[in-house]
Amino acid sequence: MGRTSDAKQKILAAARSLIEGRGYSALGVAEICKAAGVPKGSFYYFFESKESLALAVVDEHWAAQKRDWARVLGASAEPLERLRQLFEETEAGQRTVQQGCGTVSGCLFGNLTLELSNQTETVRGRLQEIFDAQVDMVESVVAEARERGDVTVADTREAARAVVAQLEGQVMFAKLYNNTQRLSPLWQNCRALLGATGS
Amino acid sequence: MGRTSDAKQKILAAARSLIEGRGYSALGVAEICKAAGVPKGSFYYFFESKESLALAVVDEHWAAQKRDWARVLGASAEPLERLRQLFEETEAGQRTVQQGCGTVSGCLFGNLTLELSNQTETVRGRLQEIFDAQVDMVESVVAEARERGDVTVADTREAARAVVAQLEGQVMFAKLYNNTQRLSPLWQNCRALLGATGS
Repeated sequence: MGRTSDAKQKILAAARSLIEGRGYSALGVAEICKAAGVPKGSFYYFFESKESLALAVVDEHWAAQKRDWARVLGASAEPLERLRQLFEETEAGQRTVQQGCGTVSGCLFGNLTLELSNQTETVRGRLQEIFDAQVDMVESVVAEARERGDVTVADTREAARAVVAQLEGQVMFAKLYNNTQRLSPLWQNCRALLGATGS
Repeated sequence: MGRTSDAKQKILAAARSLIEGRGYSALGVAEICKAAGVPKGSFYYFFESKESLALAVVDEHWAAQKRDWARVLGASAEPLERLRQLFEETEAGQRTVQQGCGTVSGCLFGNLTLELSNQTETVRGRLQEIFDAQVDMVESVVAEARERGDVTVADTREAARAVVAQLEGQVMFAKLYNNTQRLSPLWQNCRALLGATGS
């Protein structure tokens, strides 16, 4: 059983790395198994299809990211300070990947959204749930900030969507220009989008 | 010669449509030729490789979009009004595609950025030039608005990048949720990002 779950983790890790580097569509199961160093039979023991593997990769990545976001956004700091921290950690995370593999990998969910959303309804549905959850988490911090008078924005839902859209757009450019400094203005842009009152 | 250039246009149109629907990586030359209704020999008469086709598709799309952006952003209306018009036309364009094929196709350049930027340096370079040009065009309108006192933003370059990033991020969500209304808040978000002074 130890070996079994090890093979599953190897497949997931190889798939995650290949999807980050080359996208999902052009990948084959044989290639994933080769990179994972497991026989092809193992793949179908754990996953029904390439699509179910994609869902597992997405779920695993979101489980880890959700923990990070919850830690940062649920901390005891002032609400806007928590958002600032989220952007700093995002920038640091992209920098770490870039230092490891030479290129900014961007956001796995954004990448798959633009590559896949019109091809598989199952993956689309999962990505919608993830971005809805991100917006929920940001919105609750924005609502807290508004109660304190730290921001003036009228519609906290639209404001949270705008913040997550700004994050995805700037991460796209960090990837395109292979430059994590593209993420540095996120904090000022977020303050502008929220109508932050302080300095 | 009439037939020859016709074949090239057919290949470009088929490739554009296939790339919009399924991305670039999973496409094969045979499939593109089949969709275009031209023999495979024609393909290599016009294009050295699939990559050179991708560049041609990108260039053709940008030539058309640049004309549209120049018309809207170079019009005689007040600067912020021109930006508002740009977002309205973007939303209308995505709505037209959705009505035609059932799904929001998103931004061809954003899609290829997230699918391809770490795979082909040539395409990455071209997409960088295109987004640089978009930021240039937006920045010159923002600078005009600032001269008139319509916006308070300090760094017009960063502000223009933030506006284009917001556009790409919201277009991503319009595609993910297959809902062009996701683009409606663009104008208010742009005003916030620029520190617009009027109402």
